[in-house]
Amino acid sequence: MKASLFRGDKVFEFADVEAVDPGVGEVQVQVAYCGICGTDLHIYQGAMAQRLSLPQPIGHEISGTIAQVGPGVEGLTPGQKVTVRPLDPCGDCPACRAGYSHICHKLKFMGIDTVGGFQEYWNVPAHTIHKLPEAIDLQRAALIEPLAVACHDVRMSRLKAGEDVVVIGGGPIGILVALVAEQAGAKVIISEVSEYRLGIAKKLGFATVNPLTEDAVEFVTAATGGKGAEVVFEVSGVQAGVDYMTQIAATRGRVVLVAIHAEKKAVDLFRFFWRELELIGVRVYEPEDFDKAIELIASDQIELGDIITEVKNLDEITEVFENTIGNAQAMKSVIKCS
Amino acid sequence: MKASLFRGDKVFEFADVEAVDPGVGEVQVQVAYCGICGTDLHIYQGAMAQRLSLPQPIGHEISGTIAQVGPGVEGLTPGQKVTVRPLDPCGDCPACRAGYSHICHKLKFMGIDTVGGFQEYWNVPAHTIHKLPEAIDLQRAALIEPLAVACHDVRMSRLKAGEDVVVIGGGPIGILVALVAEQAGAKVIISEVSEYRLGIAKKLGFATVNPLTEDAVEFVTAATGGKGAEVVFEVSGVQAGVDYMTQIAATRGRVVLVAIHAEKKAVDLFRFFWRELELIGVRVYEPEDFDKAIELIASDQIELGDIITEVKNLDEITEVFENTIGNAQAMKSVIKCS
Repeated sequence: MKASLFRGDKVFEFADVEAVDPGVGEVQVQVAYCGICGTDLHIYQGAMAQRLSLPQPIGHEISGTIAQVGPGVEGLTPGQKVTVRPLDPCGDCPACRAGYSHICHKLKFMGIDTVGGFQEYWNVPAHTIHKLPEAIDLQRAALIEPLAVACHDVRMSRLKAGEDVVVIGGGPIGILVALVAEQAGAKVIISEVSEYRLGIAKKLGFATVNPLTEDAVEFVTAATGGKGAEVVFEVSGVQAGVDYMTQIAATRGRVVLVAIHAEKKAVDLFRFFWRELELIGVRVYEPEDFDKAIELIASDQIELGDIITEVKNLDEITEVFENTIGNAQAMKSVIKCS
Repeated sequence: MKASLFRGDKVFEFADVEAVDPGVGEVQVQVAYCGICGTDLHIYQGAMAQRLSLPQPIGHEISGTIAQVGPGVEGLTPGQKVTVRPLDPCGDCPACRAGYSHICHKLKFMGIDTVGGFQEYWNVPAHTIHKLPEAIDLQRAALIEPLAVACHDVRMSRLKAGEDVVVIGGGPIGILVALVAEQAGAKVIISEVSEYRLGIAKKLGFATVNPLTEDAVEFVTAATGGKGAEVVFEVSGVQAGVDYMTQIAATRGRVVLVAIHAEKKAVDLFRFFWRELELIGVRVYEPEDFDKAIELIASDQIELGDIITEVKNLDEITEVFENTIGNAQAMKSVIKCS
């Protein structure tokens, strides 16, 4: 079979490798499409090297079809359209024991800590499989994993219909969060500094604000009748976003921390006290978030029009990674794997 | 009547002033006791000067008896033991309209933005009155207001019986939070740097840790079977407390921000993301928190033994303020007002 092996240092090798039969409790998925995540771009540029076992395929946003089921697997049959929830928890740490296995303290994130989906056939634990309806379009289905992130973020925000929402950061995840929040009945504003991304947000019908060219606090205050937003999603990962999030939240507002802030940030804790704000850290997804994402995509309940900006073949992966890094016009690139 | 008028610049004047009859919708309370809050100490030292109308009595932690009721007040009669919830909201700002009038955007905090309780008779809006049972001890009842803060903090934490709790900061509010959490069924550890305050916490039966002399993260980790605390109350107001709060919280733990952080602090937002932590800003109290505090004090459900460290008369107030500031052995001083 064909596979794209990451060799480190910005090198992918397009190779012919032997497909291995699925082991006990495993399912072999014929990968149709695998999307490129921001994490994959970081790995390509040298991040998380200690977690990889080079050479290995990376990638974790897949859609596909079951090719074979291994011994001991029940309820799954070849030909079934599926996606993979790429989390393999230990089952025995404090997080797993408390019911939060999706953020297991020893979590194996598949496609980083294990081999990933940029290959023709991918063997995965059966518990990671979500079945897809037969009628689903597999190219759009490659968006289920990032959409499940957004479904998790919105669910954790305890959003109620009619609430005002601001999404700080209009990249792929920010746009998906905005779409899911809107579908749940929120009035959504997207704050973003890239005019290209603002254009996509506008085309999708969102109110937008560019904090580089407008008074973004004033904008949100006016748009919300003076009260601010009940829910703010911080998806920017920068200090300016952290400053902004406390300025635009309504009294008792919930600020959902989606972005990864590798460094400590200066946070206006006084404002959290004064307005009784809440900060809600969110990471990956739980099974019900995948179910919700599948439902949204299968039933065409949200407009995914311009999210996928590029579809390329497995042997073009290096070129796609090179073109995506630092490209403000890139949203979601998807690789056709078989 | 006797009144202690704050004149600014660390000066109280003990004066004979004319008692005024309560106005429409007001109740005149004969103040039995009025506790000294940390806020009062800050005011004495010069803080919040722009909010005061000097000279004025300050103070807001009172117990007393109704002396007179003004026109239009129903359901209250002279002789009734009462306490005062010292919040006078505007009723029309976004917070009031959303049902959060306790943190009204134009809140008048009585005893700061209006005259307070360090006087023999205090006229207050009838809506701020909570009736007390006849059998209650009025000296202990002066603790209802700070205890209501603790009841609010614990309620907002969504604490469940059996959960592990760490209170960072063992001053009066920290101790009250610990007592309320314990009464709700939590296992409580108090972290504090003053050996004197640790002594009070130990005498009340709490597990304690001193982060200046012990590895406080290791202590909590070991005491919680490796998982950390489901609920952390940050009552210290210092950077070390902010660092500590994210290190000791369990996965999906709730960090309740009780302390006032006047300056922005460096916060480990990565940890909020990684462990899906929540930060919950809390401020003052709502009516049900006063009801809970009254119930706890009236029914002797919590041990308040060593919280009141001093009871003095109204003409001794300057001496009490002077002795309390910077005194690590002071917990709660209470002034007998009539």
